[in-house]
Amino acid sequence: MLEASRLWRREGKSIGLVPTMGALHAGHLSLVDAARRENDVVVVSIFVNPIQFGPGEDFTRYPRDYAHDASLLEAAEVDAIYRPATAAMYPPGATTRVRVGDVAEPLEGAARPGHFEGVATVVTKLFAAVAPDRAYFGQKDAQQAAVVKRLVRDLDLGVDVRVQPIVREPDGLALSSRNVYLSPDERKAAVALSSALRAAADAYAGGERDPDALLAVLRRRLEAEPLVQVDYAELVDQATFQKPGTLAVVAARVGKTRLIDNHDLALGFPQDSFRSALK
Amino acid sequence: MLEASRLWRREGKSIGLVPTMGALHAGHLSLVDAARRENDVVVVSIFVNPIQFGPGEDFTRYPRDYAHDASLLEAAEVDAIYRPATAAMYPPGATTRVRVGDVAEPLEGAARPGHFEGVATVVTKLFAAVAPDRAYFGQKDAQQAAVVKRLVRDLDLGVDVRVQPIVREPDGLALSSRNVYLSPDERKAAVALSSALRAAADAYAGGERDPDALLAVLRRRLEAEPLVQVDYAELVDQATFQKPGTLAVVAARVGKTRLIDNHDLALGFPQDSFRSALK
Repeated sequence: MLEASRLWRREGKSIGLVPTMGALHAGHLSLVDAARRENDVVVVSIFVNPIQFGPGEDFTRYPRDYAHDASLLEAAEVDAIYRPATAAMYPPGATTRVRVGDVAEPLEGAARPGHFEGVATVVTKLFAAVAPDRAYFGQKDAQQAAVVKRLVRDLDLGVDVRVQPIVREPDGLALSSRNVYLSPDERKAAVALSSALRAAADAYAGGERDPDALLAVLRRRLEAEPLVQVDYAELVDQATFQKPGTLAVVAARVGKTRLIDNHDLALGFPQDSFRSALK
Repeated sequence: MLEASRLWRREGKSIGLVPTMGALHAGHLSLVDAARRENDVVVVSIFVNPIQFGPGEDFTRYPRDYAHDASLLEAAEVDAIYRPATAAMYPPGATTRVRVGDVAEPLEGAARPGHFEGVATVVTKLFAAVAPDRAYFGQKDAQQAAVVKRLVRDLDLGVDVRVQPIVREPDGLALSSRNVYLSPDERKAAVALSSALRAAADAYAGGERDPDALLAVLRRRLEAEPLVQVDYAELVDQATFQKPGTLAVVAARVGKTRLIDNHDLALGFPQDSFRSALK
């Protein structure tokens, strides 16, 4: 991968990287489209990174369908798929880890110990191997995007981190590879996350600025859905993930599936963010 | 720095990096010479890295003489000096750290908590900014070299880590920027480190293979010198820094100055390693 990257650089080509764990959906493809528009060469990495999953999490059953992923990426005209083997990424004695601290500590960091250390480590490795000019991440994983931006700044990685809007189903559910885990009833219940964010954004648009009042709106809608167990619902700053802020972030279990979603309440009316799925 | 590096790469030039903390001596210059022989472009970084010094260590009084360093590097025909400001390397909120584990844990890692995390973090940053093909480290800091090699492998940094032999004074003292701290009496006593390594290497050359016997030779010579307080003296593997091995590593205080030295007992007669200083 590094040899290919260095050859492209010698040819003066710019490189865009879309890091993924496969199980590609329209959200990933929107990242590929953005990379295609902004770079001479597009690389998509597919690697289900074991060290970002906790002991009780879904590493082994995480959806994998390389043939389908490859056909989508071929249609999207990517230049290369980087798909390293787990044993190549983590050979025996591969004990080095990258810890971002700070922005990686609350919320997802607290709910999933070790998760962001696994993310920061694999992203450092992918950036080293691909040496991209730009890398594309989805706003769906908002804290991950903030962690990667901090990582790039702190380690001088020289990569422009481009965060693309959430792609949603027509009813508002944020696209996620984990949505396939949902039963039909759970799938219906899962819309509570996005509709709670919409309700809070409506309240914000109506002039409400008190964080507790906005969170009450958010939580009321979530708690009205019996199949949904709220993990957290907070208002934080988009860059630091500290309070105060206008980014509403939600994590909840729907049945056994843990979903996350977010929306910046200050960024216009919520239907703006749902438009992409309605096109 | 990264822009310059990318420009050189576009021109097809290979890049060699010599990371230093300044206070350059003939040991550093041997690294620069090796880099000069093996690369189109030679970059020397000068950065006294605060995060690799512990609370009681010598960060503030570490010798700094940029004018002298620059004149040495100009004479050595380096292409660029990379000398970032501390505030640029560690701006507020720069909490990201790289931790190697394993090879970084015993000996220097145990004696200087946080030291190798500081080293691994700054080396990752320097490698990201300079994007070298090859980087040059001295065998004097043998464990540091092993930590950097592991770091490069674990994070896919794609840098060839080239370790150059220790350069010694005619009496055997390994060159170190910290030797300037020594009083005349301490300077005389400091030769105990290299002569202890020589004595152990002589015993090895004479057929002694028992680690305890070899260490006894080493320690006897060190303990015969009243101004020397041994911190550790061990025999370890050069790559893993675990026992068993033939790399004799020594750390000791001479007065208030902490010095380290090492010699691979299996690598020929000890006078081989002293030859460079006798030329």
